[in-house]
Amino acid sequence: MDTSPESCLDSRADPAAAVRDTAREPSQALDPKSPVARFGADRPLPMDSGVMLAPFQVAYQTAGTLNADRSNAVLICHALTGDQHFAHTHPVTGKPGWWETLVGPGKPVDTDRYFVVCSNVIGSCMGSTGPASLNPETDRPYGLDFPLVTIRDMVRAQAMLLDHLGIGDLLLCIGGSMGGMQVLQWAALYPERVFAAMPIATGARHSAQNIAFHEVGRQAIMADPAWADGRYLEAGTRPAKGLGVARMGAHITYLSEAALHRKFGRRFQAGSAPTFSFNADFQIESYLRHQGLSFVERFDANAYLYLTRAMDYFDLAEDHGGVLANAFRGTRTRFCVMSFTSDWLFPTADSRAIVHALNAASAPVAFVEVESDKGHDAFLLDEPALFSAAKGFIDAAARARGL
Amino acid sequence: MDTSPESCLDSRADPAAAVRDTAREPSQALDPKSPVARFGADRPLPMDSGVMLAPFQVAYQTAGTLNADRSNAVLICHALTGDQHFAHTHPVTGKPGWWETLVGPGKPVDTDRYFVVCSNVIGSCMGSTGPASLNPETDRPYGLDFPLVTIRDMVRAQAMLLDHLGIGDLLLCIGGSMGGMQVLQWAALYPERVFAAMPIATGARHSAQNIAFHEVGRQAIMADPAWADGRYLEAGTRPAKGLGVARMGAHITYLSEAALHRKFGRRFQAGSAPTFSFNADFQIESYLRHQGLSFVERFDANAYLYLTRAMDYFDLAEDHGGVLANAFRGTRTRFCVMSFTSDWLFPTADSRAIVHALNAASAPVAFVEVESDKGHDAFLLDEPALFSAAKGFIDAAARARGL
Repeated sequence: MDTSPESCLDSRADPAAAVRDTAREPSQALDPKSPVARFGADRPLPMDSGVMLAPFQVAYQTAGTLNADRSNAVLICHALTGDQHFAHTHPVTGKPGWWETLVGPGKPVDTDRYFVVCSNVIGSCMGSTGPASLNPETDRPYGLDFPLVTIRDMVRAQAMLLDHLGIGDLLLCIGGSMGGMQVLQWAALYPERVFAAMPIATGARHSAQNIAFHEVGRQAIMADPAWADGRYLEAGTRPAKGLGVARMGAHITYLSEAALHRKFGRRFQAGSAPTFSFNADFQIESYLRHQGLSFVERFDANAYLYLTRAMDYFDLAEDHGGVLANAFRGTRTRFCVMSFTSDWLFPTADSRAIVHALNAASAPVAFVEVESDKGHDAFLLDEPALFSAAKGFIDAAARARGL
Repeated sequence: MDTSPESCLDSRADPAAAVRDTAREPSQALDPKSPVARFGADRPLPMDSGVMLAPFQVAYQTAGTLNADRSNAVLICHALTGDQHFAHTHPVTGKPGWWETLVGPGKPVDTDRYFVVCSNVIGSCMGSTGPASLNPETDRPYGLDFPLVTIRDMVRAQAMLLDHLGIGDLLLCIGGSMGGMQVLQWAALYPERVFAAMPIATGARHSAQNIAFHEVGRQAIMADPAWADGRYLEAGTRPAKGLGVARMGAHITYLSEAALHRKFGRRFQAGSAPTFSFNADFQIESYLRHQGLSFVERFDANAYLYLTRAMDYFDLAEDHGGVLANAFRGTRTRFCVMSFTSDWLFPTADSRAIVHALNAASAPVAFVEVESDKGHDAFLLDEPALFSAAKGFIDAAARARGL
């Protein structure tokens, strides 16, 4: 089941699609190239800010087939700049799905056995409602009038999508980084709907340093005159430079110092001598510039503001009286928590804090710290220890559920 | 001796000073508020780029008194955004000198005993010739026509300043971060002029990760339309936003995750709840914004480009056949190398590499790794272990020299 009834809906019918005719580069962001679930005024999304968002829509992709007793559903939660195209050619970049390393026929998340769903988070820009969508009250793109989004809001929207798809509970909820935050939030908010949970390279709260890096990225975007106070779609401009700088800075945090040294070191682009200029002399400079340039082709600047903010606000303990274990009391969900030794954005200590809380809540939990020099992005890469641990955990969960 | 003959020279006579009348905010950058040594066409600065820079000038400050046999001179080398006002009220910010914690009467660098000199590096903006200075060939500010600067160029200019001041050799050359690079370069280039050297929180080369962070900062500046291809002084604009973003990002790297957590954690600015906005909700955001805003008041954007580039290019081993020990063969300089445990910009491993090379070159070297959670900036802060180690090393050097 690679499509669903919703896939037949014409995305042009989405009010947001109209923006494409008015803005110079309204962008792919509003054309999900995937099924979309729409929720009208009768089914608003209750948000942590107090806003009841309606109408709204959730763009998603699926792979595999839902079995007769609907017991083989897997929800994949994507990271900050990810989207629903986890195992599908990306409509903008033409690249393979972002988690085809882990998900597919015969892979740890085996699409021959499981029905896998992944939806673009609320606040993002690949078809789910976000700041680039049309505000029905003004008939203009929301811009910064879009309500601030939290990780919990994302999870509530995903739950409504699952209801819509006729999926009660999940065999597995899995994701890395911001996706891992959603996994934790799922387990805390809907414990009865999550049989097994695998949060990877994540934390139960965002650290001061991570907030700081996000704030620099946001300021880079907002410093770009083309951002136009968030009204760039109407202004016909695009804050590409600001968003590019934000991405360059963030990208450094996704890699380890060791990986940067191994991949680039101090190697020069051409020859072995400096040009005594501000050209991209070093390979690392050229690589970063490329990361910035390619990112702005596929991502919306305001969505970047909203999703970084959602991560900053995430503090699962704070939502439960300051005690993280309280988020998981009485849970019957089984957990596998995974970190990577060289991840300095979400270091192993963050995962240990989750494990300790799960221990305190008497939840079944396995903890895997993978030795890797690839940094935070290791969860997206070909990392055998990740695959073997995921396969073992998921297979065991499936067996325990009689699959 | 807090002044010198040069201090009587009218800084308005400096051709660069004329810029103040043409640009909206030509800035304090060109008014050093300190003595200046001027070098005419007969004494050009030979630069690594091949350029012979002339005329040029070096702004500096001194403290203490040079003794009769000129054996008590100390050279302080400043870091990226530092300047010559090491123990003097800063003319722009009104703050105390940046190293008054370490330097002063009775301090480890004791101005009652030593004659202490610190000059603004070539390429910077506090009075020494740099991209904001007037290009005599065009009568316009250099902008990006200023030749690229290297750490070695900075050191050559300092050596010419010492000649000018009648100082042959140094009792001590000391500095942190980019200042530490200069200390290493001094020891390699003029070993006979350096009796003791103390490079702190530095490395013999800039890592890929550090180059990456610098490149993001440069791109943030260049992305600012007010930068005007480096011609903002003539355009009457100022790339304050771009420079502010660059500073915010860099500032994170100067602190440790632990220090950020201790100082700010996830504390909110007011009350204990998020505002669901992009305001500076968190204290860390407010702090960073303040760092960005205050920095642009005192620093020139082009100078920031040039000095970060100088650090990126620094690779002392590469200059000596790829073997760092070759930089120090036959030296009689005594070294004290210092790192801080929580410094992730120049981690202890970088200092160890220096120590190993000095060992291989049979140079006398002490290595001090200071336990501190303050990160890279620890060398600028009140850090007792730094002071006691510096005092011991400097006192011993003075005794060995018969002072």
